[in-house]
Amino acid sequence: MIKVAVDCYGGDHSPNANVDGAIQALKEHSDLYVILTGDEEGIKKALEGKDYDKNRVEIVHAPMVITGEDKPTDAIRLKRESSMMKAVKILREDDTVCGMVSAGATGALVAAAVLRIGRLRNVIRPAFCPILPTMDGGIVGVCDSGANVDITADYLQQFAILGSTFLENVYNVKNPRVALLNVGTETEKGDVLRKDAFKLLSETKEINFVGNMESRDLLSGKYDLVVCDGFAGNVLLKATEGTAVELLTKLKKGIYSKLKYKIGGLFLKGMFKDMKSLLDYQNYGGSVLLGTSKTVVKGHGSSKSRALTKCIEQVYLMQKNSFNEKVEEKLDFIEAQRNN
Amino acid sequence: MIKVAVDCYGGDHSPNANVDGAIQALKEHSDLYVILTGDEEGIKKALEGKDYDKNRVEIVHAPMVITGEDKPTDAIRLKRESSMMKAVKILREDDTVCGMVSAGATGALVAAAVLRIGRLRNVIRPAFCPILPTMDGGIVGVCDSGANVDITADYLQQFAILGSTFLENVYNVKNPRVALLNVGTETEKGDVLRKDAFKLLSETKEINFVGNMESRDLLSGKYDLVVCDGFAGNVLLKATEGTAVELLTKLKKGIYSKLKYKIGGLFLKGMFKDMKSLLDYQNYGGSVLLGTSKTVVKGHGSSKSRALTKCIEQVYLMQKNSFNEKVEEKLDFIEAQRNN
Repeated sequence: MIKVAVDCYGGDHSPNANVDGAIQALKEHSDLYVILTGDEEGIKKALEGKDYDKNRVEIVHAPMVITGEDKPTDAIRLKRESSMMKAVKILREDDTVCGMVSAGATGALVAAAVLRIGRLRNVIRPAFCPILPTMDGGIVGVCDSGANVDITADYLQQFAILGSTFLENVYNVKNPRVALLNVGTETEKGDVLRKDAFKLLSETKEINFVGNMESRDLLSGKYDLVVCDGFAGNVLLKATEGTAVELLTKLKKGIYSKLKYKIGGLFLKGMFKDMKSLLDYQNYGGSVLLGTSKTVVKGHGSSKSRALTKCIEQVYLMQKNSFNEKVEEKLDFIEAQRNN
Repeated sequence: MIKVAVDCYGGDHSPNANVDGAIQALKEHSDLYVILTGDEEGIKKALEGKDYDKNRVEIVHAPMVITGEDKPTDAIRLKRESSMMKAVKILREDDTVCGMVSAGATGALVAAAVLRIGRLRNVIRPAFCPILPTMDGGIVGVCDSGANVDITADYLQQFAILGSTFLENVYNVKNPRVALLNVGTETEKGDVLRKDAFKLLSETKEINFVGNMESRDLLSGKYDLVVCDGFAGNVLLKATEGTAVELLTKLKKGIYSKLKYKIGGLFLKGMFKDMKSLLDYQNYGGSVLLGTSKTVVKGHGSSKSRALTKCIEQVYLMQKNSFNEKVEEKLDFIEAQRNN
């Protein structure tokens, strides 16, 4: 059995979306077992009348909920009885549970993951690796997208290994093309950090480093993984998502502005639907925190059940395909080389 | 007379686009005078048969062209006879010339501007401030977009003053709303640099600081100026432009994929045209390097005549509205406060 803890509160559509997402994941994977944390009555109500294997579901009562207003360190200390901290506690204490999913407050989740769960062997700092759709129908990962602001070239090397192993084992991307986010594609671009990182990544045989990339090419399909510091990654991710949303909103408004355009919009309905679906983050799961000794997946606050099923699957596939062991093996090897 | 040097080579559509752009600018401003640098014969040919005031045009012959392949420092040293370096030389030596425009290699232009032209009083480092269209029909400036990678909070304060003064005097934006690019909108977000900058910007009475902003809101119309380090600014700008281009290309391809969609596309033609025009950088001029003692505007390599007219107008309006004096006055005041 692969056991995953699911924080059932803290998201915009909690607990129903979380519970439904878990039920769907159970249907798709017969060796999956879920531990649902949160208000017991609420969870039971959400489960009521649903068709699922009762032997693979467990509820752990937690009366409190962490919100975005809670200061992360306070949340950890004062809200031990929250759905999120209960899930973290299970991860920490139960060796048979391999990971957790939460759509709750990011700050509290990261703080709890780093302070309470700990890192894989030789990992300096865990990093977020969200997955985005590319315009050619593929995907691209961005690591780190916000967990680490002050970094060195060594961090970027680790982000490349964590992200590559993730893409290989969860998304079946063979030999992922890794690029370094920079201000230009030429070798000599960027500040000292980028120049150092370029050299280090070029020398790292465990990854398929293809060079520098510019943010404009994120969705082009030319790269499978972009490595960057958390500040630049956050800017990259939100600028890309934000522009897509702004443009589609503008288009929609435009279509409603004139009868002629409305008619055109009707003809194009199918195409707009495909495009919306392509860009819908609900299809790509959550932002996985890579490098913690047990997997922590942060679902979008507005995640619906489909997104939460995907989040649970991300934990499931990482465990199934021995993500942790593979990462530790690669990092051991690099560490051994460095000490030689 | 307001005298502007125009580098007529180095762009994709040079020299015709540069010469035509200059002719149009002369038509629009009767007190404008242009000095066209580059191959004399080529420029004369481009001017041939055109209607313009010959008393306000001067040609300075320069047989060489700087390309993207030239190393910036080599370009300055070895290509003194290039159209770009001749324009820089004119700026340096002729007190009556107030600025220059080039669509040539960025690296060489920045290096020459910093090394040969010098800075305004109290300016630490010049910064690029490109202008983007927002979805509500307004504009937003990003300062810095790539000239400075390693910075301090003091730099960001200066970028805010340079950018605000620019928007007020060239684009008639009253009391520009300045935001700090960060990983979240809350006060306490970001690394030490962002926290320091937030405090400093809040205390700066010369600007209208409205707080932190996320990259997703660049095009929202909520802000007039975004201040950031050059690395993040570059990522922000290119991610925004790149996503817009990728999405519109995808839409176009989609429309051509089915007869039904082609028909819909015909109905929506006017709307798509308006959208394309809204996003067309040719309407917004070039990337102005703010903080040099004479204005340097970098036009996009693919600039056509319309974009180059706008670039020349940017120099013209900065001079006309005493940009340099206003910036120096504000910086003097801040410097005096600091020393008190």
